[in-house]
Amino acid sequence: MEENWVNFACNTIRTEALSDGVFAIAMTLLVLDLRVPDHETGSLLIGLLRQWPGYVSFLASFLYIAVIWTNHHGAFRRIASIDRVLSWANMGVLLGAVLLPFPTAVLADAFRAGSIEDERTAVVLYAALAVFMSTTWIVFFWVLHRRSSTTSSRDTVSWKAQVQRPIIGILCYIVGAGLGVLIHPAIGLVVLLIPVYYAVTSEGLRRPRPVAPTGA
Amino acid sequence: MEENWVNFACNTIRTEALSDGVFAIAMTLLVLDLRVPDHETGSLLIGLLRQWPGYVSFLASFLYIAVIWTNHHGAFRRIASIDRVLSWANMGVLLGAVLLPFPTAVLADAFRAGSIEDERTAVVLYAALAVFMSTTWIVFFWVLHRRSSTTSSRDTVSWKAQVQRPIIGILCYIVGAGLGVLIHPAIGLVVLLIPVYYAVTSEGLRRPRPVAPTGA
Amino acid sequence: MEENWVNFACNTIRTEALSDGVFAIAMTLLVLDLRVPDHETGSLLIGLLRQWPGYVSFLASFLYIAVIWTNHHGAFRRIASIDRVLSWANMGVLLGAVLLPFPTAVLADAFRAGSIEDERTAVVLYAALAVFMSTTWIVFFWVLHRRSSTTSSRDTVSWKAQVQRPIIGILCYIVGAGLGVLIHPAIGLVVLLIPVYYAVTSEGLRRPRPVAPTGA
Amino acid sequence: MEENWVNFACNTIRTEALSDGVFAIAMTLLVLDLRVPDHETGSLLIGLLRQWPGYVSFLASFLYIAVIWTNHHGAFRRIASIDRVLSWANMGVLLGAVLLPFPTAVLADAFRAGSIEDERTAVVLYAALAVFMSTTWIVFFWVLHRRSSTTSSRDTVSWKAQVQRPIIGILCYIVGAGLGVLIHPAIGLVVLLIPVYYAVTSEGLRRPRPVAPTGA
Repeated sequence: MEENWVNFACNTIRTEALSDGVFAIAMTLLVLDLRVPDHETGSLLIGLLRQWPGYVSFLASFLYIAVIWTNHHGAFRRIASIDRVLSWANMGVLLGAVLLPFPTAVLADAFRAGSIEDERTAVVLYAALAVFMSTTWIVFFWVLHRRSSTTSSRDTVSWKAQVQRPIIGILCYIVGAGLGVLIHPAIGLVVLLIPVYYAVTSEGLRRPRPVAPTGA
Repeated sequence: MEENWVNFACNTIRTEALSDGVFAIAMTLLVLDLRVPDHETGSLLIGLLRQWPGYVSFLASFLYIAVIWTNHHGAFRRIASIDRVLSWANMGVLLGAVLLPFPTAVLADAFRAGSIEDERTAVVLYAALAVFMSTTWIVFFWVLHRRSSTTSSRDTVSWKAQVQRPIIGILCYIVGAGLGVLIHPAIGLVVLLIPVYYAVTSEGLRRPRPVAPTGA
Repeated sequence: MEENWVNFACNTIRTEALSDGVFAIAMTLLVLDLRVPDHETGSLLIGLLRQWPGYVSFLASFLYIAVIWTNHHGAFRRIASIDRVLSWANMGVLLGAVLLPFPTAVLADAFRAGSIEDERTAVVLYAALAVFMSTTWIVFFWVLHRRSSTTSSRDTVSWKAQVQRPIIGILCYIVGAGLGVLIHPAIGLVVLLIPVYYAVTSEGLRRPRPVAPTGA
Repeated sequence: MEENWVNFACNTIRTEALSDGVFAIAMTLLVLDLRVPDHETGSLLIGLLRQWPGYVSFLASFLYIAVIWTNHHGAFRRIASIDRVLSWANMGVLLGAVLLPFPTAVLADAFRAGSIEDERTAVVLYAALAVFMSTTWIVFFWVLHRRSSTTSSRDTVSWKAQVQRPIIGILCYIVGAGLGVLIHPAIGLVVLLIPVYYAVTSEGLRRPRPVAPTGA
């Protein structure tokens, strides 16, 4: 039995530990962009209020990583062992999470400074990273799907159901960023709300339905 | 048995791992606000001493997160599995911990620079976040309470006992910040001591009393 | 049985936890070098594009740490217990990972600023750290090798196979940095691609072949 | 049995997870003080070389935290459960580790800038934190010692053997800092080598001697 435990544990525990570490740090590093504002003595309050775009993008990105973690948790509940391909697909997911503080900071800075061109750039950058992040999930699920058809039935979830959400998400990000470029960057900020869609539709923590043995 | 272990483990271990990661990082990031002071060559000592508000708020915030972790540890000892609602309630708790370094830095900076208006602002900001943090705990315990009345009796602790402390804490923070605004910001600094109250009254690491089966 | 579990767990779990934490943080800290560029209002896009060396070195270093983690994971799958010497060999590996963000930042800065002398310096610094990192692995495997010949057969993998890769890697780094110094620093940037070699040849997540009992 | 596992696990696993997180982050944050040096274009190499005090203090602090982790690992191997007092003693140990990057940065900066007064201040600050860290260990072992005499025999190790090392360490730090103040700060730098003493004498990863049942 010890051997079983070892095999099982080594295979997924460390991948999950690394991932949890990355998600926890990415979440927490976001706060480094909330700085004491430059302000004249006595007008700290005004300085703090002027930073509102920073608070909005902080919250949006925090929510985003929380959603990713939830999905990651949900996905790994069905994964009994990891192999080289799946591990690299997971690294892609982590890369997205690690990068998120960067466009978040750019977005906050652009909306604080106030040029429309810069806001546009920042919205597109944020959406572009979000599209990349959704893409890493499609790759991840595709790897899972391919594997489940050849090996154990443990990872069997409807492939269609899984890719549907990131694809809809990608479309939303493209439309949102497009509106931001064509009409006004402030409209493009709707991209910050898209994680709410992911959160609401997340399967991450639903009780897995009792899976009927696939071959039967 | 392996299956049991897996179900149990996946459900709480990753939530606790993410939370421990966030608490550990939030604790450690606080040190980034302790910087080498700007000083003329030869007067490093004076520069270091002038930073005393930074040390005070560092210690207060470190203590605060230590208390939160202790409570979190205590709460999760009674939680056998996590679901979607509880997971999001937990994310709220984490959000508070992640944010703490920000008002800590603002507070240290305001008391270093020395305008009374700014100090007032900083005290109120700190108290406001602390109220938010206490509120997330009330929500968390409320979710736990509701769940325990419908499902297993594992999470059953007196709901009243649990919310009492954050409610008293919130009142203390409001009174403290109020005194800081009306009288003098330095008095408002008592808000930094409130975590001591939480620490002393924490149930977090008391041996859970042998729980009598709830229905009997 | 509990005792067994305790002995086993304490020995490797905490070492792996510390290592996963370090790898996760080193991965994530890399993003701190991607900053909002200094730019005139309205030219954020140009500022972002000019930062391309930062993106390249970020990706290269992220990949590097991902590869190290993969190898570390692979190595520890065969390690049932840790002792003092192995623990310090592991600390050497962690030291390399912790340091990586530094030459990464130097490299990105040098190629952004644009003096050939500085680029040369930065390429050599990066290669020097990479050589150090490969060396820590050779030490690590040597410790494992020596131990496996005296105690249990659990860690037995071909020592020759294990050191071959870091030795080839070291040679590549020396040649790459040499070309960077003698010809042009941009050629030296090939050192950033060497982790791809490590990734492709990594045994980290191959199913361990069923190990024949060594003594038989 | 599941219950047993749960009680055991909850008690020590989360404390160790939090601690490992803090140690991993404190180790990794040290690298943030290694910055791209301010330098004229073309003289990056000279700028890097001038930063040597930063490299020395980085290595010393990395080694210090590695030693602390080793001791922590060793101590917790003998601890089967945690209670409120021990948990707070552990928080004291973590506080020391979290603070270490601060005097490290001060030391590196002082020796880079070059005024003797500042170097003296920095050496004393570093030694003062080191004394604090050693003191937290004495407290920690004292709590363990007191507990083991009243409850289970699991944590029984010679109390005398345990406090001997931090007490010698404290004396070394006081003498080292004293020499730094009275003679020359550069002599005070020997304090950076004291962790080597801790490392060499560490019991952290020695196989625990088969403990004879205490009562017998």
